[in-house]
This record gives sequence, C-alpha cells and structure tokens, in this order.
Amino acid sequence: MDNEQYVLGLDFGTDSVRALIIETSTGREMASEVSYYPRWAKGLYCDPDKNQFRQHPLDYIESMEAAVKGALAKMPAGSGARVVGIGVDTTGSTPCAIDRNGLPLALRDEERENPNAMFILWKDHTAVREAAEINQIAKNWGGVDYTKYEGGVYSSEWFWAKILHVLREDPRIREHAYSWIEHCDWIPALLTGVQDPAAIKRSRCAAGHKAMWHQEWNGLPPEEFLTRIDPLLAGWRERLYQETYTSDVKAGHLTAEWAERLGLRPGIAVAVGAFDAHMGAVGAEITEATLVKIMGTSTCDIMIAAPEVIGDKLIAGICGQVDGSVIPGHIGLEAGQSAYGDVYAWFRKLLCWPLEAILPETTLVNPELVDKLQAKIEAKILVKLAAEAAQLPSGETTLIALDWLNGRRTPYADQTLKGAVAGLTLGTTAPKFYRALVEATAFGARAIVERFREEGIAIDQVIAIGGIAKKSDFVMQVTADVLNMPIKVARSEQACALGAAMFGAVAAGVYSSVCDAQTRMGSGFDKTYAPQPEAAQKYQEAYQRYLELGRILERQLQTL
Amino acid sequence: MDNEQYVLGLDFGTDSVRALIIETSTGREMASEVSYYPRWAKGLYCDPDKNQFRQHPLDYIESMEAAVKGALAKMPAGSGARVVGIGVDTTGSTPCAIDRNGLPLALRDEERENPNAMFILWKDHTAVREAAEINQIAKNWGGVDYTKYEGGVYSSEWFWAKILHVLREDPRIREHAYSWIEHCDWIPALLTGVQDPAAIKRSRCAAGHKAMWHQEWNGLPPEEFLTRIDPLLAGWRERLYQETYTSDVKAGHLTAEWAERLGLRPGIAVAVGAFDAHMGAVGAEITEATLVKIMGTSTCDIMIAAPEVIGDKLIAGICGQVDGSVIPGHIGLEAGQSAYGDVYAWFRKLLCWPLEAILPETTLVNPELVDKLQAKIEAKILVKLAAEAAQLPSGETTLIALDWLNGRRTPYADQTLKGAVAGLTLGTTAPKFYRALVEATAFGARAIVERFREEGIAIDQVIAIGGIAKKSDFVMQVTADVLNMPIKVARSEQACALGAAMFGAVAAGVYSSVCDAQTRMGSGFDKTYAPQPEAAQKYQEAYQRYLELGRILERQLQTL
Repeated sequence: MDNEQYVLGLDFGTDSVRALIIETSTGREMASEVSYYPRWAKGLYCDPDKNQFRQHPLDYIESMEAAVKGALAKMPAGSGARVVGIGVDTTGSTPCAIDRNGLPLALRDEERENPNAMFILWKDHTAVREAAEINQIAKNWGGVDYTKYEGGVYSSEWFWAKILHVLREDPRIREHAYSWIEHCDWIPALLTGVQDPAAIKRSRCAAGHKAMWHQEWNGLPPEEFLTRIDPLLAGWRERLYQETYTSDVKAGHLTAEWAERLGLRPGIAVAVGAFDAHMGAVGAEITEATLVKIMGTSTCDIMIAAPEVIGDKLIAGICGQVDGSVIPGHIGLEAGQSAYGDVYAWFRKLLCWPLEAILPETTLVNPELVDKLQAKIEAKILVKLAAEAAQLPSGETTLIALDWLNGRRTPYADQTLKGAVAGLTLGTTAPKFYRALVEATAFGARAIVERFREEGIAIDQVIAIGGIAKKSDFVMQVTADVLNMPIKVARSEQACALGAAMFGAVAAGVYSSVCDAQTRMGSGFDKTYAPQPEAAQKYQEAYQRYLELGRILERQLQTL
Repeated sequence: MDNEQYVLGLDFGTDSVRALIIETSTGREMASEVSYYPRWAKGLYCDPDKNQFRQHPLDYIESMEAAVKGALAKMPAGSGARVVGIGVDTTGSTPCAIDRNGLPLALRDEERENPNAMFILWKDHTAVREAAEINQIAKNWGGVDYTKYEGGVYSSEWFWAKILHVLREDPRIREHAYSWIEHCDWIPALLTGVQDPAAIKRSRCAAGHKAMWHQEWNGLPPEEFLTRIDPLLAGWRERLYQETYTSDVKAGHLTAEWAERLGLRPGIAVAVGAFDAHMGAVGAEITEATLVKIMGTSTCDIMIAAPEVIGDKLIAGICGQVDGSVIPGHIGLEAGQSAYGDVYAWFRKLLCWPLEAILPETTLVNPELVDKLQAKIEAKILVKLAAEAAQLPSGETTLIALDWLNGRRTPYADQTLKGAVAGLTLGTTAPKFYRALVEATAFGARAIVERFREEGIAIDQVIAIGGIAKKSDFVMQVTADVLNMPIKVARSEQACALGAAMFGAVAAGVYSSVCDAQTRMGSGFDKTYAPQPEAAQKYQEAYQRYLELGRILERQLQTL
C-alpha cells in the first residue's frame, strides 16, 4: 500500500470537467468528481440562433480546481501527494486568442466579457462562410490541397475557419491577439507555467486533425496559402507553431502555484493534451484492426493503423489521418456520424408532441400531474420502443431510413444532406418506425466501416464507449448485427478520463509506452454484443437497400 | 302544402344505410335516418387478416326497412303516401351469387352462413391472384384489351375477379349459382319484384366501371376471353346481361309487399341503381369541367365530359370511363386516391403510441382516467396539428412526402407503392411532419387533375363532399392552394343519398332530366376555399419536387 502511485486524468467535456484518479499499477479507479462550467450553465456568451457557442477560460479554471479537489476529498488525506502525473483531454477544435504571455484574451480585464476573446467551442458554427472559402481556395489555388489529410473538406468547426471569423468580426481581437491556442494545449501550458506561445508544446492530435498541420509541408500550411484565403491570416503562422507533440510527451512540470491550488505535488509530469475522442479510444484499449466508437448524441469513430499500412494513401471521405494523434507511432484515423442518439431523441420528441401540446390544455389533470406525466412517459418511450422493436424481425422490414437528420459527417462529409424514410404504410407503427431509425444509424456505422475497408484497413471488431453503448442493448445488438462484428463495451464509465490518465502515467515515466499503460491500466470490457448470424445475413441485403436509397436521394436531399 | 311530393334516396354505405326523404320541388330535406347493418357490426363473415369482407343480404333488408320507417316516423302521418319515387346507391363493386329467381344464395336456408354466398364488399381483397391473372390475359391474349375503358388495370376489388375467386374456392357456389348481381342492382330488383336475372335492369355504372361492359364489344367481354382466364367462367356471360341502364331509367315499380313493409305507396317508380360516389357527384351538382372529390379516408374523384370531348380517346391511368355512369349522355370518369384522411389518421395513431403503450403502465393516473385522457388527447390531435401547421409558411417546407401509404389508385394504379418522407432534420416537429403529409395528399390530388388535363379534359373548379371536406379547413385550404382552384363544399351532409333521390325524381317523371333535378333539388354550397395566390405560386415548385421524388423512388417503393 505504501508504494501506491496515482495519476490524474482531466476530461474537459462540453458541459463539465471530470477529474479521475487512477492507481497506476492496476488501473483501479480511486475517485472521480465532475464539476460543471458555471457561466456556460447559465447560457452566457452563447447565441444558439447564430450557432455561437463560447466558453470562458474561468469556467475551465474554476471547474478544474473544484473537480480535482472534490475527487481528492473522497480519498484518504495525503493521497494528492501520491499523484505522479496528469493527462488532459478536451473537446476540439476549441481555439482561443492569446496574448504574448499565453493568456487567453478573456482573462485580460478589458476583454473579460467579449465572447470573441473566449474559447470557441467545437460546436460553434459561426464560421460557415470562412470554411467554405478555405475549401474553395484549397481546391482551386493551384498548389497543394492542404485539407487532404483532413478528409478533403475543411469544416466550420475547425481552427482556421474560427480564427478567421473572429479576426474579421472583431478589431479588438485583431489588435490584442498575439497567437492562438487550442483548449487541449492551454490547460497543460497553464498547469506547467509555460507562457511563451512559442514554447508551448502543441498537440499533434489537434494540429493534425483540425489545423492542416502535416510533416509533408513541414508544419502548418504556408503563409502564401493562408494569405490567399484572407490577408487577415498573415503573420499568424510563425507565431503559432512548427513542432507538434504526441501525448506520451511531457508538456512540462506542475507549477508550485497549481500544485497548491489542486492539492498535488509540484514538479509532477503533465502530458501534452489531446482531444477527448482520441484519448477515449486509448482508454478503451484501442488496437489495430479495431474501430472505437464513442456513441452518444453523435458518434466519433477512431482507428489506428501502422504507417506501412497507410503508406502514401489518402483515406478519402473520413475526417483526418494524423501520425500519432491517438497512439504514438501509429496513424490515427478519425471518422464519425453527425447524429446517432440524436436520431432517437428526435423520434421521442415527435411522439411527445401530444403530451406537450395537448395534455396541458385538458382539464382532466392538474398542472403538477401534467409535468410528472410528461416526464414519466418521456423517460420510458425509448425503452418501451426498444422492447417492442426487438420483437420485430431483423432486416425484414419494409421500411428503410436514411440517418442524415443532422447531415452526414462520414463517409464524405456533407452537412446539406437530410434524413428520409421510405416504405411507409398505414400499418407502420411507432416501434416499426423506431426500428427503421435504429437500423439506419447502424447502416451509417457500417458505411464508415466499409469506407475504411475499401482503403485496405482491416476491421475485425468494434469497441464502444459512451451513453448509447452503456444504455441501449437494443441499439447495440442491431449495430452488431448490421456490422456483423462483435462489439465490446468498455467497462469504464469514463474512458476519456482514463485515457488521459494513461497518458499522464506514460509522461511521468511510470510506463514506457502507451501500449504498456493500456495493458496495465485498462478497465476491460463488461459486455460483448455478438452478431446473430441470421440477422446479420438479412442485414446484408437491407444494407444494400440503404445504400441504394442514399444514392438515388442524395441530390434531392441536398436541395431540400 | 297539399301538392307536396317527396322522393326517397337510399344510400347503402359500408357500415349502414341512410334513408333520406326530400321534397321534390325544393330539394328540402324532410327527414333522414341511418340504420347500421347488425351482422356486419358484429364482424360476422369477415376475416380482416385475409382481407375477406362479406355482407349478409339480410343486413341490407333489415337495415333498409328500419331506416325508411325511421325517417317516415319523423314526419307527419301519411307522409309515406307522398313519396313518388326511390333512388338507390350502394358501394361497389359488391357482387353476390344469385339463383334462378334472383335470390342471393345466402337467403337460401342451406347457404345462410356461407360467406361465399353473400355480397363480396368493395374492399374485400381475397381476389388478388385472380385480378393479376385477368390483367395478364388481357394484355397478352392477342385480342382486345377489355380493361381499356377501366384504366387498363383490373382490380382485385372488382366483379370478375371476385366471382372467379369464389367459384374456385367454393363447389357449393359453383353448383347453386345461376347468375351474379351487384348490390346496386339487387335492391331495385328486390323492391320491384323482378326475379328473373335476365329481366333485372343492370346498372351502366357498375357494369361499365367494374365488369368490363362496353358498347364497343356489345356488352360484357366475349366468352372466348372469359374462358381463357379460367374455364370456370364459361357460361356466365349469357346468364348475366347484355343491356345496361342509366339511373334516370325506371327499374320497375314498388311491389305491394315492399310498399307495405316500408310504409310507401305501391307502384311508385324505383330508379336503376348506381354506385355511391357517382350518385354523390350528382347530388353535389357536378357539371362539365368540375371535379367532384368525395373526400374521406380515401377519395373517389368523379368527372363528366361530353362524348365529343372524349371521342375515341382512352384516358390512361384513371379508373374508368363509362358513358352515362354519372349523368346520362355524358361520359363518366372515375379516379381516386387510395388514402387521404387515412394518412392523417395514421400520423395521429403514431403520435398516440405513448398514450396507448406507456400511459396505462404509469401508476400516476387511475385506469378510468387513462381512457378519458387517451380519448380526449386523440380527439384533439389533428385539430391542434392543423392549427400549428397553418402557422408554418406554405410550400416552403424542406420536407416532401409521398402520399402512397395505401398504394396509389390514380394516376396509374399501383398498389405495391408505399409512402415516403424526405428532408427530415433534427428540427422536424410534429406540425411540420403533418403539414408535409397534408401537402402530399394535396399533391396526389393535383396529379389526378393534371392527368385529366393532359388528356384535354378541362377542370376549372372542384366540388368536395365527405368528412374531410366538411371538417378540415386546413386540409381544404392546402388542397385549394396546391390545386390552384376554388373548392366548393356541398351544403348537404348526405350528397350521395340526395343524388339517389334526384334519380328517383327523374325516374318518377317529376323532372325530365338529371340536370333539371340537380337545378331544382341541389343543396348548393356552404363554403368555398379560394386558392391564395402566394401559396399557390410556391406550391407550383413544391409540386415539381413531389413529382421528382415520386419518379426517383417509384421502383424502390414497389420492392419494399
């Protein structure tokens, strides 16, 4: 017991940060605490109508402090001193303007309330125009297509589009910004006291997947390309970075000030940061030939492949291929579905309409009971639908749906696409409709698997993490049947924070490789969904129908 | 007052018969009574799983007697003696086997409980195979295509398919049947005491639209064709009929026995019968260039055109063109949509699923309240959806639906088609979905109008009758906007029975033509939906999208 060592995983999600303390020798979870971002919870600095979503750096600081202290408070006194390393994952691309001292501009008094001086959250879509311009130039300027390792389509959710949008919109940012930083780079810089933007160790994961950084052109895209997009992008390249780092590397050592604030020992290792999905894949024990699906409202799909498997190949239609973005020495591959759980939530909301629009108008029940009834029925809808849908025959449905209700991320990103349902009859019940939607999301997952395979990347199993993986047996079984592969569900409820802790352990020198850390610290799996041969067989044909429906409707759905 | 004359309209619907007593000089409704078929109400002789729907002739007799007596009971004593004529309409094709004395076999003791000896209701679909065989032979036997005046596709709902099905299935019918009769022919024969099958005046409407009767081949299809379909059809042609009659003609005179049973005067005129939709169109004051839509769960669409307008033309893709089937001297044209109100009812049922599947399981409300809540909310769903959908912009929806949830009747009958919805997003609410469904049914109505116009048949207004026309302002306004034509709603709640009464008046000699009867006895219109120019303009484009979606999905929907 005296030799126990711990690592801290910090997982910054969309609404909250989780601190997870793990025993390095066993991977045992010692304590965990979640703390919600207070300003974000109030809706500050956001404008959903404009798809503007900003987060204040103080939200991150205050919540991190509370989460770490809260987790340690659940352990014996002195436990903090046993923490030997910290790993950090965040959402992304979530960049922010910083000054010469690495300070996010919103931490300067004069910009404290300016949303443009804050972190621009991954799902902020204010830069749609800028992304379109970047794509236009990249395809037509006559030089290298710098989007080519990011799937060939630059998104409004990403680094350069967001930077350009804020620069165009806000002269104060143009005046005061010295450089820019991703959320996953800022937390390690903050904890280790690295203030010079040039000295901050930048994440390979963030740079490669979102900022068009690549070894082929020796870093970020050249000045000539960036200024061709807009002269406002002049000069940033040299004040950003050329080198990038994988997360087995130490970003630095915890400062005395932050050690004090968090209740940890000064000088311990802090690993270079990365994105949540990528560290989540590590926490879920990703290996070659394994697709890790982070399954929630949408999915993020992560793979790794040996460099010799990829070679010079550009994997078309996915969201990026980056050396070391997941595990050092392997090419990290990212894909995803724009809606998964959100498709089911949409159907639930549709079915709840009479409860919301009509029930309160009846005089049969008092207002208090109305709320309770709504909540109770809503909570049971998907469970009951799943139970009834599970009784229907697999892959024999006369109903085929397209899962693009939030556009399509992979394969071949196209956010203008929309969902569809074909084969409705007067006998189409809610469970049949729901089953078709679940099958559609599973077919979407299958399309990603096939895209990888078409590029020669083998996949023989799936590992799933996230809310859907943990909660919906029916969805998981249909997905396994459609993919015709086993799906293992990671035991850990916080695979992302666990992955971050693994990187913390490697950066601290506890393990010499990420693979070792996975082996020793992995939580294993608590459930495997095996494909049912008969259903899998039937879904072969149904999947072809899905593809055919998508092919013939694609142009129409774009213009609706 | 002493000169008052009345006529009786008998409207045999799917569930009940209505007796309507009308003053001939004004069209004023004096009394009305509905009587439900007692055996049918109990579900006897039907098997919904096999789509077998049969009606016992005693149901018709008993209900007719009750309805007529009930209506007369609401009037001053002696009113029955003022009734000078009777008109009859029924559903169809609804044929039954009869013996040498014109008696439906189910009225013979030994066949009293045999469903094959009863009337085969219009919606009975047991003869799907027989219809397919008739179509196959008609198209390939090398002779005339005898389906050509019935839209070129023979339906399982029609006369010969049903006869053949029963003959194949039931040796007792083969042995005892002497001939066959449509429901609309049997009632007048019964009331007038005509027993010899050869003497019964057969309806032009039923014969022409459902039995391939046409002047071109001098009656029913030749023996050679019928026996090619199946030798079992040999011999029936000569025991059926060669002549047919329009409903301005007297079928005969009321027998003393039936005058006694109904409380009427013996010897009054009984008109030749016809189908409900066709007589409904007359009751709704159909004229040339006017489409009459009977709008309920499905629609039946009726037009008339002067013979010189039609000439030799075969109107492709509709359900039939028959000289005199609606108004003597005009070609009656029939079309229809397989689902209209049924599409909205489907959506209501979908939205009611949580109330049916989950509400009863909650312990929050007692079982008695559950029933009340379900009933109350269900009753309000379409009203509330319409109110919210009406607030959405017309024809700007990003959602396009196909209305073929029950197949497509017109244009170009194809019962293998199914419904579809394209353009779903996470923001698609129930009112948006409902609006798309309403627009889809209106687009389906437009496709029928365009089919007629493409054949050179002008349409400049629509007259609507039926439940949807009377009850749903929203649906009617969208339909008017999509059609870009005014829709007038007939004032009479029983246009079919009123039409039958008009024919009764003509047959009795009160009026010399159907047109005169319409002019004097018509109920007029209580509402006109005028197209809104801006909405109509937008729907021009949306209708093209509907057509395009149908075109590209048609093959896929057939195979689902």
